[in-house]
Amino acid sequence: MVKQFSAFAPATISNVACGFDVFGFAIDGPGDIVTARFSDKPGITISAISGDEGRLPLKTMSNTAGIAANHLMNTIKSAVGIDLQITKKMPFSSGLGSSAASAAAAVTAINALLDYPLKHEELLPSVVEAERALCGSSHADNAAPALLGGFILVRSTEPLDYIKVPLPENLHYALVHPKIEINTNDARKALPKQIDLFTAVKQWANTAALVQALNSSDFGLLGRSMVDYVAEPVRAKMVSHYQEVKETALANGAVAFTISGSGPAMFAFSDNADKAEKIATAMNAVYNKYDIENTVYSGKIKHDGTTLIRE
Amino acid sequence: MVKQFSAFAPATISNVACGFDVFGFAIDGPGDIVTARFSDKPGITISAISGDEGRLPLKTMSNTAGIAANHLMNTIKSAVGIDLQITKKMPFSSGLGSSAASAAAAVTAINALLDYPLKHEELLPSVVEAERALCGSSHADNAAPALLGGFILVRSTEPLDYIKVPLPENLHYALVHPKIEINTNDARKALPKQIDLFTAVKQWANTAALVQALNSSDFGLLGRSMVDYVAEPVRAKMVSHYQEVKETALANGAVAFTISGSGPAMFAFSDNADKAEKIATAMNAVYNKYDIENTVYSGKIKHDGTTLIRE
Repeated sequence: MVKQFSAFAPATISNVACGFDVFGFAIDGPGDIVTARFSDKPGITISAISGDEGRLPLKTMSNTAGIAANHLMNTIKSAVGIDLQITKKMPFSSGLGSSAASAAAAVTAINALLDYPLKHEELLPSVVEAERALCGSSHADNAAPALLGGFILVRSTEPLDYIKVPLPENLHYALVHPKIEINTNDARKALPKQIDLFTAVKQWANTAALVQALNSSDFGLLGRSMVDYVAEPVRAKMVSHYQEVKETALANGAVAFTISGSGPAMFAFSDNADKAEKIATAMNAVYNKYDIENTVYSGKIKHDGTTLIRE
Repeated sequence: MVKQFSAFAPATISNVACGFDVFGFAIDGPGDIVTARFSDKPGITISAISGDEGRLPLKTMSNTAGIAANHLMNTIKSAVGIDLQITKKMPFSSGLGSSAASAAAAVTAINALLDYPLKHEELLPSVVEAERALCGSSHADNAAPALLGGFILVRSTEPLDYIKVPLPENLHYALVHPKIEINTNDARKALPKQIDLFTAVKQWANTAALVQALNSSDFGLLGRSMVDYVAEPVRAKMVSHYQEVKETALANGAVAFTISGSGPAMFAFSDNADKAEKIATAMNAVYNKYDIENTVYSGKIKHDGTTLIRE
């Protein structure tokens, strides 16, 4: 049997309301699988992608898995040929960190194939580089939780400085992904270039309060702190029926509700599993009513990030 | 003996680098004492102020202690005559929350004199009102720690929403107050009205990281997070020899160093008492070298805020 390793990387939710570009967490729901094996062709090749409806590029340096893999091989100064096969098991252009997931799965599988030249956390710069190549500015709010799991605060990207934030045991999410296309770059362009100091103060009070809420399992404070004055006001307008879905989630017991990354996915936090499932069902019903194809998930934070799949 | 109550309110350090308008903590150093007793004159009068070199107004509604006291009496709908005597035991216009301290001491003493119509924390709106009257916008980053002690995150002022953040047991401060006059209103006017999104992201990543650092007693992270892109760059220029004092503090083992409030006081954090004292001595030496009158303090956070003095 040909030696190969496969890794699964989870979907991630970034920004988390007030924490634009600095917060992200991994969920125990969908994700991507990348299989790596040795190849006679030099460098990184991508021989197959499934689950993408033929829309993602096979060309190495146009694909986040390829870019991350290439960065890793440069880091460890290896020229060995490696072929990747990507199985998309999550929607892309969804605001769920699909590009980070493919990149994280690719480098994790390659690192295992090469018998661990790097520690798992040392793979992060390669995943961040893939994100940078994709959207022009390096940010790690999907990359870090996709690779490392948990709820991550990215204090700085250059140099990279991130912290895993402790979480309440009973923190659950409910997620809805309506099939509406939003381009991440367009969503970024719509953001204000400048914000007034008064608004900025409110935003950084909230990021501080969110971290305190997670440390002290204070769901009331978590809800009050998850107010976004910067991205949500702009991006919510790009998602059909946003307000109705938000009101539905809150009416069904959500602690907080906001857009996931640049959308169109949205999520709610809840303090128990049953409520999270109920919220997911209610959000699903809203989009069903408008005949908009949508998928819902609910569950917990995934604490271990990208993991190898036993084969 | 005439029935009277005296309360001591501590000096406070607000902003704490990245946390402009949202963080503040009380120190176990200097502070103000206010004595309250019943008076035949209706309303609030201030009969004496000492320790102010004759510079603070006796007129009730021009003095923060008077404004806070008046707000408290309106809140509890009492018209009883009360006289205040204020003993300033800390410098004012120093960036150490002198106005909040007088206000907090006044309402605490009055609340005791009237046999506790309000809980201690219910006095906060009166202290915040005094701050609002003084500087035009309501903020509680000195008021809340002066009254309640500890390290406070003010998530919102309207409505008032604050949280005490847990602290490392071995957190110490070293403080220097050079006798340089800086007007708080001038210091606020010098602030940027707008900040670019990129800078704002760095600032709110830091406020989040500072809270995480305090919760996890991570002094390395505390130091990295105490970077201010908004107020310090403007205000440091108003304080003579700022950079030299900062370098001196850091060279003597400070975890972080920044301006206190709107200055001119400055402070450093340290992870032990001896180091804090050494830093204070070194900062004192810098200003002595330039023949600038200065006072230094070092110690711990004051956890209990404003307290009654046993007489």
